[in-house]
Amino acid sequence: MSVPTTTEIIGILGGMGPAATADFYAKLVAATPGAGDQDHLRTVIWSDPTIPDRTEALLAGGPDPTPWLLNGGRVLREAGATVIAIPCNTAHAFVPRIADHVGLPIVHMIGEVARHLSTLSPRIHTVGLLATTGTVRTGLYQEWLDHFGIRLVLPGTTSQDAEVMAAIHAVKAGTHDERTTALLTRAARRLTEQGAQAVIAGCTEIPLGLPDDAVSVPVIDPALVLARALVRRSRPHGGGHEDE
Amino acid sequence: MSVPTTTEIIGILGGMGPAATADFYAKLVAATPGAGDQDHLRTVIWSDPTIPDRTEALLAGGPDPTPWLLNGGRVLREAGATVIAIPCNTAHAFVPRIADHVGLPIVHMIGEVARHLSTLSPRIHTVGLLATTGTVRTGLYQEWLDHFGIRLVLPGTTSQDAEVMAAIHAVKAGTHDERTTALLTRAARRLTEQGAQAVIAGCTEIPLGLPDDAVSVPVIDPALVLARALVRRSRPHGGGHEDE
Repeated sequence: MSVPTTTEIIGILGGMGPAATADFYAKLVAATPGAGDQDHLRTVIWSDPTIPDRTEALLAGGPDPTPWLLNGGRVLREAGATVIAIPCNTAHAFVPRIADHVGLPIVHMIGEVARHLSTLSPRIHTVGLLATTGTVRTGLYQEWLDHFGIRLVLPGTTSQDAEVMAAIHAVKAGTHDERTTALLTRAARRLTEQGAQAVIAGCTEIPLGLPDDAVSVPVIDPALVLARALVRRSRPHGGGHEDE
Repeated sequence: MSVPTTTEIIGILGGMGPAATADFYAKLVAATPGAGDQDHLRTVIWSDPTIPDRTEALLAGGPDPTPWLLNGGRVLREAGATVIAIPCNTAHAFVPRIADHVGLPIVHMIGEVARHLSTLSPRIHTVGLLATTGTVRTGLYQEWLDHFGIRLVLPGTTSQDAEVMAAIHAVKAGTHDERTTALLTRAARRLTEQGAQAVIAGCTEIPLGLPDDAVSVPVIDPALVLARALVRRSRPHGGGHEDE
């Protein structure tokens, strides 16, 4: 048995949705270098899918998910987590409400995506975003991309509703098929026509319905970027490289 | 938001290995009926891949994983879990050592597989087992299948080492490819030649390398059987049906 090289315990605040949480953990495992079980990171996952819908809360006055997020953060801290990752883009709108209360550092998925985009070569000037209407309207990506001088292009209202949100709901319901892929591909192509040199699959459900090669530009999966950031943090001397 | 119909919180004692844990949680989510996130089961996962190898402990005098399992059980109970599932066949050899100490019911994966096999039609008289040498030698499946009058056939020593264990190690190392599938397919066919009417993919790594249609008889995935048992238990009035 090899000696564990880290005392980090990854806390995943999940359930938003549950399929995306499973997918994120699979990506974290795949992003971790090592030949045997014992080389992997200790991880605790709290997946509470009963948390109120984030987009509903942001746009339609639905129940506030903050108490659920605080409870999840508490569970993870008490379980021994040393850092928190939240594999849900829209939930990041609530990070400012919980950051001071969870007692653990949060690796910010959207901040990591903006930083990652700024490291790509050739340099990215314009990026497109496929995300929930909640994520789009709160300007989460806009704010972080501004720091790095990257312009953001978004779907029009019709594409956002009839293509992006329709596809996200299909993935959440487990009914996604080639029609879902076609919707997302069409929405992504509209973004490249507006000059996007990369497309952010900015809802953890989207990579489940949009293949990497759907458009001619890179599709950035924030869950994968977050997984690699966690590995780099936990394994400073190996793995978690930035290359796709 | 629909009202949650259960107060059950599923505790997954995972990390054995981490990829199999991610796969198991994905199966649990897929096995849960419902159209939205809020229909899914609250779940807490403790994934500690630093736990000593179970087969090494059973066969080669390696470190005893029992303290790790007890610690994981404690974390899950303190996080609010109401039931424990262990998606690792070999770890079930240690269930008798922890069952009285974790303070929660454990849904026994191997017991559930034996029960599931006894419900199939046409009736199964003989079943084959692909599993770690640890699982095979401890007779875990033999013991449970005996209760239901089902005969067990096993790979010969050479097939066990050079095909089954070689494939399991490849999946754990993330290096599995079509060669791994060929090894497992060959081992599974040897079992059907001995009369197996179904093959148990009795290590959570095996379904990741052996497609359902690799042999002409049903391949039973214990992780899927366990996921369905958890859903039936938590959602007595819907879902988690036995049919493949």
